[in-house]
Amino acid sequence: MNELKKLPRATAKRLPLYLRNLKVLEANGVTRIKSKEFAEVTQVPSATIRRDFSYLGELGRSGYGYEVPFLIEVFSELLETDEEKRIALVGMGNLGKALLKNNFRRNANLKINCVFDNNPELIGTVFDGFMIYGMDQFEKVCQENNVNVAITTVPSHSSQMAVNTIVDAGITAILNFAPDRVIVPPYVSIRYIDLTTELLTLIFFDNQHQQLIPNYVKN
Amino acid sequence: MNELKKLPRATAKRLPLYLRNLKVLEANGVTRIKSKEFAEVTQVPSATIRRDFSYLGELGRSGYGYEVPFLIEVFSELLETDEEKRIALVGMGNLGKALLKNNFRRNANLKINCVFDNNPELIGTVFDGFMIYGMDQFEKVCQENNVNVAITTVPSHSSQMAVNTIVDAGITAILNFAPDRVIVPPYVSIRYIDLTTELLTLIFFDNQHQQLIPNYVKN
Repeated sequence: MNELKKLPRATAKRLPLYLRNLKVLEANGVTRIKSKEFAEVTQVPSATIRRDFSYLGELGRSGYGYEVPFLIEVFSELLETDEEKRIALVGMGNLGKALLKNNFRRNANLKINCVFDNNPELIGTVFDGFMIYGMDQFEKVCQENNVNVAITTVPSHSSQMAVNTIVDAGITAILNFAPDRVIVPPYVSIRYIDLTTELLTLIFFDNQHQQLIPNYVKN
Repeated sequence: MNELKKLPRATAKRLPLYLRNLKVLEANGVTRIKSKEFAEVTQVPSATIRRDFSYLGELGRSGYGYEVPFLIEVFSELLETDEEKRIALVGMGNLGKALLKNNFRRNANLKINCVFDNNPELIGTVFDGFMIYGMDQFEKVCQENNVNVAITTVPSHSSQMAVNTIVDAGITAILNFAPDRVIVPPYVSIRYIDLTTELLTLIFFDNQHQQLIPNYVKN
């Protein structure tokens, strides 16, 4: 796994996208693909794809393209999707319920195994077949379930408290739907999903985009 | 707005994050900040912050730092948050309901104004004060409400159809929660939220991270 340490962060970020699209191609009977074609599928520029792939060694030959099953094998190993990830979900509001209903069903190795909330009215009730536990039971329930990833949908004002409980239970990978930054020890990986920022960024790019596109294209 | 066209995409992407954090600082009475301090707040490296800011002209002085209210003014103008954005939400499953309940309440200029679904059992019913319309009424209702942004939570298999209806109604900014790529005209901006990819990326970085951190740090 030595080469991984040299992988640029931007390249690493694209690997899951590549893998997902390769699986779609494979499901549709495509066994070989050129970077230009793969660029159309992924909407990533073909030069970027070739550069990204080059970090991973000899994946294909010039003018011939890439073998889809081989790429899937290499990328799956890199992303370690062979390993089952067991997930704790903290916060059973609307967003928590949406995540649990979906439960990453497209990926057999990602599974929400236990759910938590601090609301006394929810604790002990069952949603969608899942018993909702209180946060005071977090460490115990996570250990029993061999949980190694946590997702929190807890609002910003309680987010740090929820994250502290998660970290204290020994979990090192946290996906946080509250956009305010929280403090975690250096060995913990945390990722934020900030939908307001995503929307503002979209609007920003759309504004730039509309200034560059002549009006007649739209009519 | 000429300088905007030179702004690197990665810098543009960080602007909403900067703005949000500046507003938090201002609310806490901070009027001046150095890039190193701002790096701690935003978790963006201070060199990146200085480079990003340099694209926007003379925002501060060496050794003195940046005036928070001035930065807020500049960034607000860039992101045009002064302009009210009216949003159509398509798909009223759990995720749609979660988005509507939250309704970007932290940003006064972002507002979901009308909601749609194709389920005959939902059409005509009211959720959280919003009448749910059918997609056959999309263009009419959006025009009446001056909608200029759409969010779709429609599942992948119907996503392209929903996006077609959105594009036909003249909307050029679309946030799509279905990860499969859809086809849009070149003047349309579309952004995907793919939670499975976000989670796989988190796990990938956590795996790399755990290999690099000596075990004694964790004990």
